[in-house]
Amino acid sequence: MVIDIHGHYTTAPKALEEWRKRQIAGLKDPAQAPGVSELRISDDELRESIETNQLAKMRERGSDLTVFSPRASFMAHHIGDFQTSSTWASICNELCHRVAQLFPDNFIGAAMLPQSPGADPKACIREIERCVDQFGFVAINLNPDPSGGHWTLPPLSDRSWYPIYEAMVAYELPAMIHVSTSCNPCFHTTGAHYLNADTTAFMQCLTSDLFDAFPTLKIIIPHGGGAVPYHWGRFRGLAQELNKPQLREHLLKNIFFDTCVYHQPGIDLLARVIPADNILFASEMIGAVRGIDPETGHAYDDTRRYVDGTPHLSAEERWKVYEGNARRVYPRLDRALRAKGR
Amino acid sequence: MVIDIHGHYTTAPKALEEWRKRQIAGLKDPAQAPGVSELRISDDELRESIETNQLAKMRERGSDLTVFSPRASFMAHHIGDFQTSSTWASICNELCHRVAQLFPDNFIGAAMLPQSPGADPKACIREIERCVDQFGFVAINLNPDPSGGHWTLPPLSDRSWYPIYEAMVAYELPAMIHVSTSCNPCFHTTGAHYLNADTTAFMQCLTSDLFDAFPTLKIIIPHGGGAVPYHWGRFRGLAQELNKPQLREHLLKNIFFDTCVYHQPGIDLLARVIPADNILFASEMIGAVRGIDPETGHAYDDTRRYVDGTPHLSAEERWKVYEGNARRVYPRLDRALRAKGR
Repeated sequence: MVIDIHGHYTTAPKALEEWRKRQIAGLKDPAQAPGVSELRISDDELRESIETNQLAKMRERGSDLTVFSPRASFMAHHIGDFQTSSTWASICNELCHRVAQLFPDNFIGAAMLPQSPGADPKACIREIERCVDQFGFVAINLNPDPSGGHWTLPPLSDRSWYPIYEAMVAYELPAMIHVSTSCNPCFHTTGAHYLNADTTAFMQCLTSDLFDAFPTLKIIIPHGGGAVPYHWGRFRGLAQELNKPQLREHLLKNIFFDTCVYHQPGIDLLARVIPADNILFASEMIGAVRGIDPETGHAYDDTRRYVDGTPHLSAEERWKVYEGNARRVYPRLDRALRAKGR
Repeated sequence: MVIDIHGHYTTAPKALEEWRKRQIAGLKDPAQAPGVSELRISDDELRESIETNQLAKMRERGSDLTVFSPRASFMAHHIGDFQTSSTWASICNELCHRVAQLFPDNFIGAAMLPQSPGADPKACIREIERCVDQFGFVAINLNPDPSGGHWTLPPLSDRSWYPIYEAMVAYELPAMIHVSTSCNPCFHTTGAHYLNADTTAFMQCLTSDLFDAFPTLKIIIPHGGGAVPYHWGRFRGLAQELNKPQLREHLLKNIFFDTCVYHQPGIDLLARVIPADNILFASEMIGAVRGIDPETGHAYDDTRRYVDGTPHLSAEERWKVYEGNARRVYPRLDRALRAKGR
C-alpha cells in the first residue's frame, strides 16, 4: 500500500474561491460578507473535482491513500482576524471531510487550523477537536508564520505554542509544518516562502529543547525538509557547536521529512542522508509544480518514480517510506486502516 | 591554483569588536561614540590573526588565494543608520585591504557595503568606488535584507537596486548575495537566515527579467545556493509555469553557486545537478561551522575534500570549479593574477 501524506484540495469547485473572495470583500464592506450557508457545493461536484484530478493521478501513478487537507496557499491566515480564519477553516475542513466520506478508501483528512497573527494558538483547539472527534481526521497542518512572510510570531519552541502540542499529544496527531501564501513581496510563495519555512522550523527545533518537553510530539517537515538534507553536514555541525546531542538523538525521534522533491537527484540525496525511518512518501500533487519535466517526459510531482528509482533504499526501507512510517507517525491513520482490515 | 571565493575576516583582533560595541553604545549615548582613529590594530596583530588561522588552514587544506571580505555576521546593517554603516563598512573594508597588502599572494579583497534599511542603495556607490579604485577589491557582498530578517526592502529585481548593478557592470564586479545577523528571533542566523536568503534571492531573480536589463551582471549565491540545487526540479518546473525560459538560458549566464556545503552528499548533489561552469570553489572557513565532523574526522568546512571526492566532476571541470570559473566571473581578480604572471 502506498500512502501519500501530503495532498491538498487544490481542485475544489470554483464556488469555494468565490465565497472566499466575498468573505475578504466583507472585511472592508460588511454588506458583502456571505453567510456560511450561502456556499453550496453538491456531492457530485466534489466527486468530479476529485475523480478527474487527484484520484485519476493516484491510480495512474500508483498511490492508494492520500492524507488530504485544505489548499495550503488558500489558508492565508494573515487575512482578517481569528473569526475570519475560524469560519474559513471550518468550511475548508468540512469539504475535505466530505471528500473523505465520498472516497473512504482513498482519502483521509488533515486539518487546517484557524490561525491568525494576533490570536492565541490556544484558540485553535476547538477546531482540532471537531476535526478529530466528528470527522476522524488524523493530522493537522501547523503554520509557523500566520503573518504570511513577515514572521511576527515567536519560534515554534515558544510556550505560546504549547497548547497546540498538548492537543497533538493527547490526540496522537502529527503536525505538518506548512505556511501559506506570502504577502511579503520578497518571498515567492512556493519558490521561497515554503522552503524557507521548512528550514526555519527545523532550525527552531534544533536550537530548542522542545522534544524534551514533548517527547512524543511528531512533526513533519514537508518539501523534503526545505534546505535541511542538502545541508545536513551544516546542521550536524551547528548542533555540535550549540552543544546539542547528535541530530539522530536530538531531533530524529520527532521530526520526519516528506518526499516532495521534484527530481531524481534530490530524492537520491534525501534517501542517502536521512534515515529511511524518517522519510514519508508524499507528492503534493496538483500543487506548486504541475508541469511535465521535459528531461524525463513525466510530471515533476510524480514523486513515486523518484522513490522507486533511487538506489539508496532497500525493499524494506522503501516499504517504510511508502507505508510503514506513515502508520507509525500517524497512529490514527493506522487504526482507521486496521479497522477496515487494511 | 585553488581560489576560495568565500572568506570572511572572522578572526580580526578583538579591538575591532570592542570598537563596534562602543559605536553601538554611542547610538544611545553619543558621549560613548568612538572616533575612527581610536581603533588601532598593528600590522603584527593582523599578521598573527591571519597566519595562525585562515592562512594556516589554506596551506593545510590546499588553497592558494582567498577572496576576502569583512565578517558577514558583523555587518549588521540593521543597526543605526547609513552613517553608522558607512563608518563601520569603511573600517572593516580597510582591514581586509591591509590583510591583502600583507599577504598579497593569498588574499584579495571584496567589499562590504554601507547598506542601511532606510537608505537608498545608491548611497553605497562611493564605498564601492573607494574599494575598487584605492584598494583593488574585486567583488562586493550585497545584502538583500539589511533589516536583518524582517525583509522590509523590495526584491533584488526592483529598480531601487539598479544603481548598485550599474556600478557592478561598470567596474566588472560580481556580487555575492549575503545577509548578515538575523535580529528576527524566528531565524537562526547561520542555520536559517543565510540559507533562506540564498533561496529567496534566486527566486527573486527567477521571477524577474533582471538579467535582460543587465546581461553581464554576475551574482554568486553562496552556501551552495541555499535550497536551490536540492530542489532544482521544483525551480525548473516553476520557471516553466511562469513562462520563463529554461533555467540555463534564463539564469545560468548570470548566477553562480559556491561550494559551501559541509558534507560529501551535498557537494555530490551540487556537482550532479548544476553545470560545472556555474560552481565556484569556496569554504567560508572559520565561519558558521568550525567543528570536526565525527563521521569523517575532518573539519566540516574543509570543502576541498568534498570537491576532490565527488564523482560528478571531470578533471577539467574540477579545474573550472577551483580556478577557471573564478577567473571568468571575477575579471578583476583574473587581471590582478595575470599582472603577477599567475
